[in-house]
Amino acid sequence: MKQEEVVIKFPDGNEKQFPKGISLEQIADSISPSLRKKSLAGKVNGTLYDLKRSIGKDAEIELLDISSSAGIEIMRHTTAHVLAQAVKRLYGNIHLGVGPVIENGFYYDIDVEHSITMDELVKIEKEMSNIISENLEVERKEVSRKEAMEIFTHDPLKLELLEDIPQEDMVTVYRQGEFFDLCRGPHLPVTRFIKAFKLTHVSGAYWRGDSQNKVLQRIYGVAFASKEEQAEYFRFVEEANKRNHRKLGKELELFMFSEEAPGMPFYLANGQLIRNELESFLRDLQHSYNYKEVRTPIMMNQRLWEQSGHWNHYKENMYFSEVDDQKFALKPMNCPGHMLIFKDKLHSYRDLPIRMAEFGQVHRHEFSGALNGMLRVRTFCQDDAHIFVTPDQIEQEITEALTLIDYVYSTFGFSYEIELSTRPSHFMGDELLWDKAEGALKNVLNELNYNFKINKGDGAFYGPKIDIHIKDALKRSHQCATVQLDFQMPEKFDLSYVDESNEKSRPVVIHRAVFGSIDRFLGILIEHFGGAFPTWLAPVQVKVIGVSNKAHKEYADEVTQRLKQEGIRVEHDLREEKLGYKMREAQIKKVPNILVVGDQERENHTVNVRKYGQEGSEEVQIDEFISSLKKSINNKWLNEGV
Amino acid sequence: MKQEEVVIKFPDGNEKQFPKGISLEQIADSISPSLRKKSLAGKVNGTLYDLKRSIGKDAEIELLDISSSAGIEIMRHTTAHVLAQAVKRLYGNIHLGVGPVIENGFYYDIDVEHSITMDELVKIEKEMSNIISENLEVERKEVSRKEAMEIFTHDPLKLELLEDIPQEDMVTVYRQGEFFDLCRGPHLPVTRFIKAFKLTHVSGAYWRGDSQNKVLQRIYGVAFASKEEQAEYFRFVEEANKRNHRKLGKELELFMFSEEAPGMPFYLANGQLIRNELESFLRDLQHSYNYKEVRTPIMMNQRLWEQSGHWNHYKENMYFSEVDDQKFALKPMNCPGHMLIFKDKLHSYRDLPIRMAEFGQVHRHEFSGALNGMLRVRTFCQDDAHIFVTPDQIEQEITEALTLIDYVYSTFGFSYEIELSTRPSHFMGDELLWDKAEGALKNVLNELNYNFKINKGDGAFYGPKIDIHIKDALKRSHQCATVQLDFQMPEKFDLSYVDESNEKSRPVVIHRAVFGSIDRFLGILIEHFGGAFPTWLAPVQVKVIGVSNKAHKEYADEVTQRLKQEGIRVEHDLREEKLGYKMREAQIKKVPNILVVGDQERENHTVNVRKYGQEGSEEVQIDEFISSLKKSINNKWLNEGV
Repeated sequence: MKQEEVVIKFPDGNEKQFPKGISLEQIADSISPSLRKKSLAGKVNGTLYDLKRSIGKDAEIELLDISSSAGIEIMRHTTAHVLAQAVKRLYGNIHLGVGPVIENGFYYDIDVEHSITMDELVKIEKEMSNIISENLEVERKEVSRKEAMEIFTHDPLKLELLEDIPQEDMVTVYRQGEFFDLCRGPHLPVTRFIKAFKLTHVSGAYWRGDSQNKVLQRIYGVAFASKEEQAEYFRFVEEANKRNHRKLGKELELFMFSEEAPGMPFYLANGQLIRNELESFLRDLQHSYNYKEVRTPIMMNQRLWEQSGHWNHYKENMYFSEVDDQKFALKPMNCPGHMLIFKDKLHSYRDLPIRMAEFGQVHRHEFSGALNGMLRVRTFCQDDAHIFVTPDQIEQEITEALTLIDYVYSTFGFSYEIELSTRPSHFMGDELLWDKAEGALKNVLNELNYNFKINKGDGAFYGPKIDIHIKDALKRSHQCATVQLDFQMPEKFDLSYVDESNEKSRPVVIHRAVFGSIDRFLGILIEHFGGAFPTWLAPVQVKVIGVSNKAHKEYADEVTQRLKQEGIRVEHDLREEKLGYKMREAQIKKVPNILVVGDQERENHTVNVRKYGQEGSEEVQIDEFISSLKKSINNKWLNEGV
Repeated sequence: MKQEEVVIKFPDGNEKQFPKGISLEQIADSISPSLRKKSLAGKVNGTLYDLKRSIGKDAEIELLDISSSAGIEIMRHTTAHVLAQAVKRLYGNIHLGVGPVIENGFYYDIDVEHSITMDELVKIEKEMSNIISENLEVERKEVSRKEAMEIFTHDPLKLELLEDIPQEDMVTVYRQGEFFDLCRGPHLPVTRFIKAFKLTHVSGAYWRGDSQNKVLQRIYGVAFASKEEQAEYFRFVEEANKRNHRKLGKELELFMFSEEAPGMPFYLANGQLIRNELESFLRDLQHSYNYKEVRTPIMMNQRLWEQSGHWNHYKENMYFSEVDDQKFALKPMNCPGHMLIFKDKLHSYRDLPIRMAEFGQVHRHEFSGALNGMLRVRTFCQDDAHIFVTPDQIEQEITEALTLIDYVYSTFGFSYEIELSTRPSHFMGDELLWDKAEGALKNVLNELNYNFKINKGDGAFYGPKIDIHIKDALKRSHQCATVQLDFQMPEKFDLSYVDESNEKSRPVVIHRAVFGSIDRFLGILIEHFGGAFPTWLAPVQVKVIGVSNKAHKEYADEVTQRLKQEGIRVEHDLREEKLGYKMREAQIKKVPNILVVGDQERENHTVNVRKYGQEGSEEVQIDEFISSLKKSINNKWLNEGV
């Protein structure tokens, strides 16, 4: 009898027969030894498979190496096992919790009596390197529940995990050398695939995230495809730490937080100056785009939020108060207030579009664990606008909104990507209206020649939306601007205008934000610029320092006054400190322009200009400096180009 | 036996003996018949007395005529009785409630079956005139409770009032002709003293203000010393109605209110433009005075308000919410937030004064009946500042604050009066500190040569204060700016700075507001300017109208674009309406500059300028117009002075 065979289909569409029970490793080897050598796992009919696992039926397969994201995750997972193995070797009879893959690496939770120190991490790393160079084979074994309970009889935490595996699921144990673990896999075939890893820190973590449980020690590590990638990652982390907005927020005295209002920013003078510049910038721009600015109350009667649908869809994130024994809600969005304003007046089609904008302070609850400086807060100022249009005006208005957004982002040097989010499972209103709305958004994006990604099912509950993701200087992505169509809100508030045939018609609402949250946008800007703001945004635009406080005070004062008269934010450092000290401090505060004045400058009516981030300095006529600085401020240049 | 005598002391200090039981009228007559003729009542040992009431013991007396405020109130009270008498004559068996004096007049509550119409008020007025010309004598009679109950046996409302008179008080009945009333008095001696009165309106009012009770009809009237004064009053009312900010707010589309948030303003586009101008004006000014602007959260933990003392002294006026199961309060003031900012950093005496400013949105409960457009709201933006000073800096900083306030008020053309309010009965902190603080405020006011009034006991609970009352165009007084010293808040928050001798010292806080509430200030400005804002504040600064829409469109557009480029808020009226109609409408909207352009203007590169509130118009070169308009805007002129 001929040995049973299976038909294997490759990603390129080719098919080939192999003996039943063949493994991915053997298939790779049959193609080329080099392919076998670099393959670390694979997919069989879409499911991740260990390289040595046998294939029992016809299948489509795909081989994975370290260049794929699934491949790198498998490598990180095995590295977690190597970590656990090293800890077992070093500490003997300890208990293991879970050891999953996370962004850039992995962790393992360990139940060990003493607190593991950073020095011990170095020893553990060394043992891990030993294990890797032993090039242990990683074996997968399917076991019965009974067998598993015997294997882990001295591992109470693993027994708990075992109980949670659904009865219909297979139980698998992975073994490498003397170490074995309850694990779903898959894993590397051998440990030598781990080329670059590092343990980064250790912290306490409740077993299974429950504060009633014991605290385990969670050892974190990272692992990469190569030593180069790992080095690149640590350079990125170092740069990101330098630019951390919470750190810079403190150093540059931009903002603070208090225990008395967690997640609710306090703007210090420097931060408020930047905030005001951001607000003015957009206010003026919106004015030129014929937006009308309004301002609506912070809290309104709960029945309004019931009418708008926020009550049903958003109440968990809302804060409440009471006025005259009636329940009021602090606004999480500005929409209902704007609907009331629209409704307060009769409108003709001639009045549309009405572009209603507000810098509205909204409150939205976030779990305290989710708070993150300015990037995740509980109250923020939304640069919100609602554009009331006739159906004919939708495309034109969305085009204009995208143009405005492009102008703003270019000003800050952000590139961006566009995503179109469509109907979610939990939605309000008619499917036909949704289709129409989605079609309009796609049309505009296509006509503007934007590449865009479609996020199926990710729209807001009231309509489809275009989200814009900016890329900051470290290439990190942040969702900020949004343009959302809304056919529902006008229904809910029974909005109407009188159309050309003198009939009542329903307007369409476009929700639009550019910064999104001014607070969060400021946080992003701090990291984007690393705190070194362009002159137009800098809290102190110019610092004047006399070579000698006494001898050059008069001239330094004169320069300072001239700048002040021109509306420039300038400070004269008059402290009794040395020139070098003052200059270093101005550098630390990232002042974009330091002017040093001494005998020569006084004689020549000049200033010695040192631009932040540039080598050297230049002596220029004071008038020339002022005019170039004003040009930079008025044009909102990213750098002076002097 | 010699008749018993009493010693009467006159306001000028003279004393004279009179027979016991003499009346004020007889005393006046003994001095001169003309004095008797103009006297309508008096004071005996500080108590108001009817002119004919007998004086039983030695007394200091004062005679009152219609020129005194007490005299005019007595006249208004008697006019209320005349009203009740007229109603009884006309309607027969009705029941009377109460009939007190109010500002400028009086009312009487009447229990009558049908709704009294405005036409009937005319008839009632006529009957009142009859009663006055009958010149009835008004008699006072002391009666026992039993007698009173008999007199008012058919007057159930009066019987109720009788029950409320304390047992130890005397019961008095006043009679004029056939009419009598339960009344404490005093009253005019005869009805001919009523020279000018008018019934103004009638409305429903619950008996004794209790909504469980019957609705009575309340007839309102005014009464004045002379027909001239009355005419002056009605002229004022007419002008005030024209300028009513709620009416103008609607007509000029400045703001609106909604049932969904009573007392919480919604700014419409035009109102928001003015609001932004007000905010920018003060922001720039404060910047030049070296204030540092901050921004603090809308709500903070209740324990902070307990610490600040607001919880004890102000909680009835506060709104609350909940965050993470902790009670939070919406800020009614910005102080505690600013204290937290001060405390976040170490301060040296060299850093002081620190002038911390915020445009802070606060919430304060008001009874719904007390709400009054923008003048009394439940949330407003306070232009708040806290100045942290060493004790030595107090006087200098208060002087600067008053200088800034003077600059702002002069810009709007307000004159103002200053009041110094001192320690109230309910106060926090040490009396000695209070004395010191009050002394400092007095010193500054004296040195600035201000006339000021002292309001004893009217200070805030935390310190003495200077309040500034502006006088608007109708000479009405509004309290807006305030400068308050605070020795308590720094204690409560344990604030400190390091002084010259390297010791921890307690700073002093100066609370300061200029507008007070931007919202209320805007309300006052609307009435002050009657909606005709100076150009720098006007929502639409220039309206361009072509003589013919078609023929002059191009030139009108060119003019509009030129103005727009200069940052001027300009609108081109392109509707298919007649020139006259468009001009009238621009006048109604109180646009400060209307530019009409036709053939002649196009040829001459000119515009025909019509300034609001001025007769005629003038043809000027477009460049000239722009430069004069910009001068007006930049200098914040009250009128163009063209």
